[in-house]
Amino acid sequence: MVGGGEGSIIGETHMLSLRADGLCELVAGALSSRPDVASLSAERQMISADRSYQSYAEMAEREAARADRIDAVVIATPPDSHLDIARQFLSRGIDVICEKPMTRDVAEAEELASLVASTGRFFFLTHCYTGYPMVRQARDMVARGIIGDIRMIEIEFCPGEPGTALEPLDPAKRHWRFKPGSMGKAAILGEVGSHSYNLACFIGGARARSVSATLATFADRREVYDNAYLTVRYENGAQGRLWSSYVASGNNMGLKVRIFGSAASLAWDQEHPEQLVHKPIGEPAVILERGYDSMSAVARSSTRFRAGFPEGYGLAFANMYTDFAKALIARELGLDNAPYLASLPTVEDGLEGMRLIAAAISSHENDGDWKQLPNR
Amino acid sequence: MVGGGEGSIIGETHMLSLRADGLCELVAGALSSRPDVASLSAERQMISADRSYQSYAEMAEREAARADRIDAVVIATPPDSHLDIARQFLSRGIDVICEKPMTRDVAEAEELASLVASTGRFFFLTHCYTGYPMVRQARDMVARGIIGDIRMIEIEFCPGEPGTALEPLDPAKRHWRFKPGSMGKAAILGEVGSHSYNLACFIGGARARSVSATLATFADRREVYDNAYLTVRYENGAQGRLWSSYVASGNNMGLKVRIFGSAASLAWDQEHPEQLVHKPIGEPAVILERGYDSMSAVARSSTRFRAGFPEGYGLAFANMYTDFAKALIARELGLDNAPYLASLPTVEDGLEGMRLIAAAISSHENDGDWKQLPNR
Amino acid sequence: MVGGGEGSIIGETHMLSLRADGLCELVAGALSSRPDVASLSAERQMISADRSYQSYAEMAEREAARADRIDAVVIATPPDSHLDIARQFLSRGIDVICEKPMTRDVAEAEELASLVASTGRFFFLTHCYTGYPMVRQARDMVARGIIGDIRMIEIEFCPGEPGTALEPLDPAKRHWRFKPGSMGKAAILGEVGSHSYNLACFIGGARARSVSATLATFADRREVYDNAYLTVRYENGAQGRLWSSYVASGNNMGLKVRIFGSAASLAWDQEHPEQLVHKPIGEPAVILERGYDSMSAVARSSTRFRAGFPEGYGLAFANMYTDFAKALIARELGLDNAPYLASLPTVEDGLEGMRLIAAAISSHENDGDWKQLPNR
Amino acid sequence: MVGGGEGSIIGETHMLSLRADGLCELVAGALSSRPDVASLSAERQMISADRSYQSYAEMAEREAARADRIDAVVIATPPDSHLDIARQFLSRGIDVICEKPMTRDVAEAEELASLVASTGRFFFLTHCYTGYPMVRQARDMVARGIIGDIRMIEIEFCPGEPGTALEPLDPAKRHWRFKPGSMGKAAILGEVGSHSYNLACFIGGARARSVSATLATFADRREVYDNAYLTVRYENGAQGRLWSSYVASGNNMGLKVRIFGSAASLAWDQEHPEQLVHKPIGEPAVILERGYDSMSAVARSSTRFRAGFPEGYGLAFANMYTDFAKALIARELGLDNAPYLASLPTVEDGLEGMRLIAAAISSHENDGDWKQLPNR
Repeated sequence: MVGGGEGSIIGETHMLSLRADGLCELVAGALSSRPDVASLSAERQMISADRSYQSYAEMAEREAARADRIDAVVIATPPDSHLDIARQFLSRGIDVICEKPMTRDVAEAEELASLVASTGRFFFLTHCYTGYPMVRQARDMVARGIIGDIRMIEIEFCPGEPGTALEPLDPAKRHWRFKPGSMGKAAILGEVGSHSYNLACFIGGARARSVSATLATFADRREVYDNAYLTVRYENGAQGRLWSSYVASGNNMGLKVRIFGSAASLAWDQEHPEQLVHKPIGEPAVILERGYDSMSAVARSSTRFRAGFPEGYGLAFANMYTDFAKALIARELGLDNAPYLASLPTVEDGLEGMRLIAAAISSHENDGDWKQLPNR
Repeated sequence: MVGGGEGSIIGETHMLSLRADGLCELVAGALSSRPDVASLSAERQMISADRSYQSYAEMAEREAARADRIDAVVIATPPDSHLDIARQFLSRGIDVICEKPMTRDVAEAEELASLVASTGRFFFLTHCYTGYPMVRQARDMVARGIIGDIRMIEIEFCPGEPGTALEPLDPAKRHWRFKPGSMGKAAILGEVGSHSYNLACFIGGARARSVSATLATFADRREVYDNAYLTVRYENGAQGRLWSSYVASGNNMGLKVRIFGSAASLAWDQEHPEQLVHKPIGEPAVILERGYDSMSAVARSSTRFRAGFPEGYGLAFANMYTDFAKALIARELGLDNAPYLASLPTVEDGLEGMRLIAAAISSHENDGDWKQLPNR
Repeated sequence: MVGGGEGSIIGETHMLSLRADGLCELVAGALSSRPDVASLSAERQMISADRSYQSYAEMAEREAARADRIDAVVIATPPDSHLDIARQFLSRGIDVICEKPMTRDVAEAEELASLVASTGRFFFLTHCYTGYPMVRQARDMVARGIIGDIRMIEIEFCPGEPGTALEPLDPAKRHWRFKPGSMGKAAILGEVGSHSYNLACFIGGARARSVSATLATFADRREVYDNAYLTVRYENGAQGRLWSSYVASGNNMGLKVRIFGSAASLAWDQEHPEQLVHKPIGEPAVILERGYDSMSAVARSSTRFRAGFPEGYGLAFANMYTDFAKALIARELGLDNAPYLASLPTVEDGLEGMRLIAAAISSHENDGDWKQLPNR
Repeated sequence: MVGGGEGSIIGETHMLSLRADGLCELVAGALSSRPDVASLSAERQMISADRSYQSYAEMAEREAARADRIDAVVIATPPDSHLDIARQFLSRGIDVICEKPMTRDVAEAEELASLVASTGRFFFLTHCYTGYPMVRQARDMVARGIIGDIRMIEIEFCPGEPGTALEPLDPAKRHWRFKPGSMGKAAILGEVGSHSYNLACFIGGARARSVSATLATFADRREVYDNAYLTVRYENGAQGRLWSSYVASGNNMGLKVRIFGSAASLAWDQEHPEQLVHKPIGEPAVILERGYDSMSAVARSSTRFRAGFPEGYGLAFANMYTDFAKALIARELGLDNAPYLASLPTVEDGLEGMRLIAAAISSHENDGDWKQLPNR
């Protein structure tokens, strides 16, 4: 792992998720750019001292030279470093698991997509909510036509917590997330908006054709946008809205997905992730639930416990690691790994997300005018 | 009552609501433009034959001439007739209770507002959701600053039922709601959007400064828009979205309100109207409930049963009639009627709604550009 | 109406419910045993002075003598007076609507049942929760075998409000409900337990064979039981529990019903009465909802508004009045009134309830031993 | 681990839970009584072949002899084998983690309690629901007097799944859970009732004084009870009910806990375990939520993710392993381990549970009479 050392929330999540199913092991790392934190973190994670590195470049070089080298690297650093880190490992034949947002901008994303294509390595982006069994169930139901033609896709991802804090008076004390340097002024779109759009594409099988956006900053002293309203027209004729906010006061995590089709709707709330509400037109709502035999194959194979024993966020994340591990094993054994890769967001998905963000910023800066996304 | 005869859903609702508290009585009507329906409806409502009229003009004239004439008339016809009906009664000194949308367009709304001002009669618009005790509670909490400065107002009103039907092949069989003749192509904004915007103003104490809109038609053969996304900037610095739809498949009634402030948020769902969720930043959610002593005075005085005995939609609507009846009695007795009028939407509120609709249509027709509303 | 004057919660509920649908009118009353309250209450209800009586005896005698006499009387007094009031009216050919618990004890209940049988008048007991459309839906589904053989019936009715108050030090200030004189020490079983058992019988088509009970008093200075656990064996082989409590702190109204069969379960919560959860074994839960075309005929005919416009407690109560009014009209017209009477609790249901209470007290006084109910 | 090999649901749960936080490792096992299953399971769990044993006796003996011997053993076999397995390991100085129900009967439980006392080893019983942060929060609130004196404790644990199946005609195909041989005819009380009673004691700080029970068998061909109603009087004056069932059709997992005090109530539902509803008398309900700074210290220290990122059942279980691991480390370092042991159910708790079960069976066999539990 690169990044993700002591004090990193996302780092801990990765560690738990990779361990939970017993298929992955954390054996090497450049866990922090600060040498003392890197060493301490590695020790706490029981990484042997000779595989705790001072930099990702050193790690890539020395791991590539080992007989027992790592199978894959997890990139858990801020987004402006992703491209270079990925390059170091991909170019040495090491697969990559990468945190979102994928890169700093569209140009970097395009370069990374080329790199992945040319090296032929596995690359997956941890849009972790696609690991939830009921999100995969929703995708499968949409693909099977159960809700008919998609009309509207409504997603909001508005974590309330950061809204608790005013920005510190001292700019040095502000989180990198709220500084324009790292991901630009529309960091919120990279941070949470990219997840929402990924879910729209993942579940809806849709891709944005154009976007109209209204961005705003509500918190005092904040230098970046903290609220983003996007209206989206999709290639398949659907429309929808994506709301990303750090100032939805009182929210906990705040991710909700609803898809309305010509025959039915589906609704999913990340805070009660075991249920998926299926509401056909003119018929009562049905509460689909993880763990039932009647769920889709992909939902059943992403499941550990019986219905009613909640699996939660950590094990949804773990589903991605387990898929990835099985894809690696299948590759090694010369077996078909497509089923294991089918639910993992790709570098192309990441590029698509960066393009939406760029178009949204452009729309906002032009009085909310509709902006086209490039064709693929 | 004018309109609202047999087969009219809204007519039945008015009749139940005016009767429930025992303060109002239905004694005269021109209940349908079809004479046979008018007579039959009057008989069923135990209106004496001599007060069942063939036209609203006749009703206005003859009622005005009676010693025991009606105190007020309820207008429950399609919106393009409201102005003239209201004129007939207002000009004869009879108060008016009027269904929404208030008129066909802004010009008519302005004329009606002048008429009300010049005649000095009571006029209230049945934006019936303002009758709910917990909506009034929310308004009071916002006014007392409990949620801080308002940042975002999110309202959706997306009844699913009409989405069940395709438009009939024979245009003659289509509901007037789905014909452009009555309220123009953006009927949906008049029908449900006007309620949402009224709630935004009622609870939030806000007024739109500008709007960006995206309208769409999803149902086959439909001649009017059936989905409307509005993004709104309010005069007080808040932003928000209003979503109106007839194609939110699977929804029942689909009205939800959320207001986010700098200190807390409030959330209310019309389908579970007894509860109002108050979520302060950093503290657990509190489920406020109708019937508690700790509720605001206005919520307590709009309440009949103890907490836990749901009052529902009919009695929320009845709260408006009861307020109105008390305002009439207070006027007659020379007492202060302000408290009884405080929660009743006015002709000015109706005009404001018509202006938002006009601006939204204009925005949609101009690539989603932001359109200003006229200052008041 | 006898009783139910100013300050009576149940009186106000009856008045609203009888008026709401426009089929009943309140025209006479002995609304209080205190003459001043009786007069004032009658005036407020617009009852003409000559039909406001000082006693129920006077009312029965004088109303019976009028050409425009009342069709039926509502008895809304404490239970120890019900038998005599009912006798006065039934014996003069006036139908009776009676509050629960039906009488003071089993002996009185038997006498009342005989009286109703011998006079041939209509008599219905206001176990008002049977007026809810979704309760009637549940009964119909059970009758149609949709949940299979009934195994368990779980009902709790634990209003939290009275738990708020300690008993006043001055016994004179205590509510009659909490004095042993009126309904004996197990008043709680008459007050709320009788509703629960009525619902078990109404929905489950079941009748208790035997009962084991544990009664307790938790509130300081309280002279009657305020918590009652009953375990019941039904004639049809089902078992179940009935929990009645005035000390379920924090509850609002606290009535919940669940019925488990060999094929599915049904669950209904009075505080969200529009929904009925139908959960088949091995399949997802289905949220049945008032207002859908797929609901049972009885649920549809007990419905006014479309799905999603909550009807609430007052209109559930009104369903009973409307059924009763239609039964009277049908009788007058010589038509079949069975459909209108089918959902109204009878004097036999009331007698059954009194028997359960007597058996429960006997069980509690004998170490929780199982007590048989008499066969019918 | 002893037992828990391939095909064991509880085995997989233990494995995930012990791994998730990175503090425990599975290094040895007698994972099945069938040698082939034992070997395969060990291989799949990456246990080296020399530490995969054919029997627990062999495992105890050989592990005890190793320098790198296991710190503790997990007993995941049917309950009639627990005592002997525990004896083998405890007597060799190896700590024990034991599945519930603790033993076959009270006599075995007493022997095991003596054994633990005499060897001085750590022993904890995996009543896993005590690992949930919000269950620990509830316990802490009760201990701090926040709900006042406890009046009623209502717990139900009624997993619906086994209700799906009729018993197979061939007795050989029936699950050991449904055979009287393993835990007697009241297996359901051992299986789920023991969890409920443990939660009553854990949260309520209560201990049963006496019990009245009604047991029943509903499923065809079933040889054991599948429904159990217990009414309990606690030493602290509280009363309550424990409902255990395998025939609550349609339920998923079906564990719900409610505690009513003189000042407030608490409610927790295992299927939505992140929330704990705190309802003070006369005040609105408060939805306490895992992850808030205002939660109790014990709830905060049992937490990984921020509020709104559900942790679920697996990580609740993992909390027990993590507590245990920290207790071991503290013991090794000579530090205070009390805080780590404070939430872990003990052998005494297990004995208490066995006594309740015995008293309940006795009550049922004596017409529901109240049976005393022995004093401690």
